[in-house]
Amino acid sequence: IWRCLMKIGRFFEKARDIAASEPTKAIHGVKVGMALSLVSLFYYMRPLYDGVGGNAMWAVMTVVVAFEYSVGATIAKSFNRISATFLAGSLGIGVHWIANQCGELEPVILQASVAILGAAATFSRFIPYVKARFDYGAMIFILTFCFVSVSGYRVDKVLELARNRVSTIAIGTSICILTSMLFYPVWAGNELHKLIYKNLEKLADSLNGCVTEYFKDNEERSGLKQEGYKSVLNSKASEEAMANLARWEPAHGRFKFRHPWKQYLKVGASMRSCAYCIETLNGFISSEVQAPELLKKHLKEVCMTLTSSSSNVLKELAMSMKTMTKSTKTKFLVQEMNFAVQSFQNVLKDLSKQVLVLPEHEMDEGKLKTQIVPIMAIVPLATLASLLIEIAERIEGIVGV
Amino acid sequence: IWRCLMKIGRFFEKARDIAASEPTKAIHGVKVGMALSLVSLFYYMRPLYDGVGGNAMWAVMTVVVAFEYSVGATIAKSFNRISATFLAGSLGIGVHWIANQCGELEPVILQASVAILGAAATFSRFIPYVKARFDYGAMIFILTFCFVSVSGYRVDKVLELARNRVSTIAIGTSICILTSMLFYPVWAGNELHKLIYKNLEKLADSLNGCVTEYFKDNEERSGLKQEGYKSVLNSKASEEAMANLARWEPAHGRFKFRHPWKQYLKVGASMRSCAYCIETLNGFISSEVQAPELLKKHLKEVCMTLTSSSSNVLKELAMSMKTMTKSTKTKFLVQEMNFAVQSFQNVLKDLSKQVLVLPEHEMDEGKLKTQIVPIMAIVPLATLASLLIEIAERIEGIVGV
Repeated sequence: IWRCLMKIGRFFEKARDIAASEPTKAIHGVKVGMALSLVSLFYYMRPLYDGVGGNAMWAVMTVVVAFEYSVGATIAKSFNRISATFLAGSLGIGVHWIANQCGELEPVILQASVAILGAAATFSRFIPYVKARFDYGAMIFILTFCFVSVSGYRVDKVLELARNRVSTIAIGTSICILTSMLFYPVWAGNELHKLIYKNLEKLADSLNGCVTEYFKDNEERSGLKQEGYKSVLNSKASEEAMANLARWEPAHGRFKFRHPWKQYLKVGASMRSCAYCIETLNGFISSEVQAPELLKKHLKEVCMTLTSSSSNVLKELAMSMKTMTKSTKTKFLVQEMNFAVQSFQNVLKDLSKQVLVLPEHEMDEGKLKTQIVPIMAIVPLATLASLLIEIAERIEGIVGV
Repeated sequence: IWRCLMKIGRFFEKARDIAASEPTKAIHGVKVGMALSLVSLFYYMRPLYDGVGGNAMWAVMTVVVAFEYSVGATIAKSFNRISATFLAGSLGIGVHWIANQCGELEPVILQASVAILGAAATFSRFIPYVKARFDYGAMIFILTFCFVSVSGYRVDKVLELARNRVSTIAIGTSICILTSMLFYPVWAGNELHKLIYKNLEKLADSLNGCVTEYFKDNEERSGLKQEGYKSVLNSKASEEAMANLARWEPAHGRFKFRHPWKQYLKVGASMRSCAYCIETLNGFISSEVQAPELLKKHLKEVCMTLTSSSSNVLKELAMSMKTMTKSTKTKFLVQEMNFAVQSFQNVLKDLSKQVLVLPEHEMDEGKLKTQIVPIMAIVPLATLASLLIEIAERIEGIVGV
């Protein structure tokens, strides 16, 4: 029992943590509560009751299932719900009428139509285009069609029922949309925008951090891991979901209705390819193979220059994305980065004038001018160099989007 | 209009492609159709009608919303639906009774309880533990609680309604579960298993393919891209979802009830870290910086040995996972891979005896014995070397899981 209580305690602690770190999520809960009490008023106010009271259950249901975290999701679900109900309702009435005309075959026709349309609509949910936009609509379509075509009512009764159903759903969806838009709205587009520029900042920080860490002396190392890039690695699914939802949203803040959300996906994709490289770099830096100190010192400055110019480009991109202005500095910074790549390559070339690569046993710790290092010692730094250059290239890819 | 028709045509083509390449998805559609006609029989068969006919709508609804692609998902949804309905129903009746006792305050108490519980349950859906297992349950909880506590009925009537509701839902869920389990079942566990070993095979193939491609002469290159690893990069979300669902499934095939599904996630994670490396390797190989042919030829054999021994380990892992046997060969192959790493490093060391790294202008194309290459030329091969060694290390990580 004690263990069980502990578990419950930890559960609530976790819930409190989430509420504290992301208050919008707690607010979302409050919003749903508000919408629910609003819609349940339909049960208590007499004049309203007479209009739609009997079917008011459908308004409650609509609020529960269609109220989502972001405005885009709420609108998408509401739209899906209304249009699918309408479509399936009319189709159902049609089938109903046809079946009625056929007399004895009625149950067979109805059953067959339910089975066939149900199968087709279910299958359509696997098609990527439908899945992205009308997944929920397909489900509601099946549901409504089954209700209408299977219910034993006569056609005129069904028509009345359908009118009622549509009006309650309209009430439910409008409550949903209004509550989610007017009271601390969470815009999917805005969230996507925030996610992308925060990820850019994280990439810049972890690139900078992990190279700096590498060039520190062993004693100075903070042991602090640069894991910011990790959230970039797995953000594909959430980016795509948000871009899909953002398309449904009306103009808000600095975003117009037809904001080019797909661009964000492209930026996200090239950011991820950059993050893969940083992941490799990080794994490589934290592995045990170390370069000789002298060579490391020699290359430190030029490596740091390249790294900081790369991460400057990323930061500038994040900044210009955050403020949604076209930065004039970006071009300049990219040039600076390319220049850093060039001078890095030059230093490597110059190095070969000074450094002879010879077997280990002949190694001599003289001055840098006559330094002789084994080829094995160059391998780590060479890798570092190509990774940094590759990262710089991929960053240019982000700029190019 | 013509364009519109073209679009529709392409849509159907796409649907046909999906049905052809993944027939289980088409079968799933048929299964849903079957379950729907089964459940709609309740409307037509008189004796059944008397029992639950009035509420049979709920059975239809249950089938539509709870029938999922995999058995695990269907069971999870069914369980969520039944337990949440039961829980919320009892709680709702309790609140109803309390509110009844309070006389005039009744509407206030009801409204408040709906708002508070609605908000709490909605918020709980953001807690990862709840989200992974009881997301749907939380929604149904809110829904049922609202229905029960808000409906204007007297308590005894509510009790009867609740009994009816639970029995229809039970009918719906049992139809769902039976249809999905007995007729071409799709087990989430099995799918996860397949996904993981296929991904292992893909990794092996693309590692092998891209290094082979690198060492081919320019004319021989097939231009065929090795993109198999790409599906590993973004599989995290689907792996986690499947592992969550697999937990709900009963014993099937070679999987026991408490199969260690979490192990698959660990294998998946280390596979992904390996895939990141291959991504970098691939990007690096396809970039324009090329190593001098002579050096490349010199290293070709040892590189290929390492690569093929690495990908052999991966293939053996895939094989032993596919057949679910503990392979005795794995250990041996890992040793072989480590040996290949060692001999690779030795070759690099030996190389420094033969090759002097000197500036480009002093370069002399003599025999290999006295070959002198600039340091810049070593950089690409050094990178290749460390990447291959890093990949070998990460593969050992997969074996270690």
